[in-house]
Amino acid sequence: MEDMSERPSGLDPKIAARLKRDPNGLVPAIAQQYDTGEVLMLAWMDDEALHRTLTTGRATYWSRSRQEYWVKGETSGHQQWVKSVALDCDGDAILLKVDQVGPACHTGDRTCWDSDVLEAVVGERPES
Amino acid sequence: MEDMSERPSGLDPKIAARLKRDPNGLVPAIAQQYDTGEVLMLAWMDDEALHRTLTTGRATYWSRSRQEYWVKGETSGHQQWVKSVALDCDGDAILLKVDQVGPACHTGDRTCWDSDVLEAVVGERPES
Repeated sequence: MEDMSERPSGLDPKIAARLKRDPNGLVPAIAQQYDTGEVLMLAWMDDEALHRTLTTGRATYWSRSRQEYWVKGETSGHQQWVKSVALDCDGDAILLKVDQVGPACHTGDRTCWDSDVLEAVVGERPES
Repeated sequence: MEDMSERPSGLDPKIAARLKRDPNGLVPAIAQQYDTGEVLMLAWMDDEALHRTLTTGRATYWSRSRQEYWVKGETSGHQQWVKSVALDCDGDAILLKVDQVGPACHTGDRTCWDSDVLEAVVGERPES
């Protein structure tokens, strides 16, 4: 497989040095609605997608299926306007807080987790 | 590399059939505090970790560094009590809503995104 971590990027080298990428040069990015806290979707970024997200105010991902940059909402109109971006403690996951226009999911659901809730045993923290 | 998707699992085959795993047999799982909406951490599950999470009321992950199952909080005391579990629209990301005891992050921070907020251009949705 092509080493996709080699795509040219304008990302600040100090940020790039903290990223831990998968073998395809990608880091998972969680998009969360900034005011309601809804977790909207998970997508993937390479260095350049993160750079564009940080510098344009619009969430930009790497599409693994299309193998190209994907400005969220560019075709659907369902843009994600960036409110904040953070790296996690070990640099291998990104959290975006965004203002999502309309549905985040390509199915038309507001979030990608609206339709397949699994049956689960519910846990309760012990009384302290 | 060993094909880790071959570990035995008690996961319901109807759920297993919907999962899309990475080459190591893993799916990213986002843990969110069920009442406040805080995104706490991202970790990884194989089929059996998801099965244990669904059936025990405690979030269980696959530790990529230790190559073993990891019941969150088993050593730290910072358990995640499961409130709900959902698969995303294409079966390649899991959202757990949990009741997190204490800090979720191994650094002692409440979430894994508390310490490395990046400088970002803020986007504003157009007036409609």
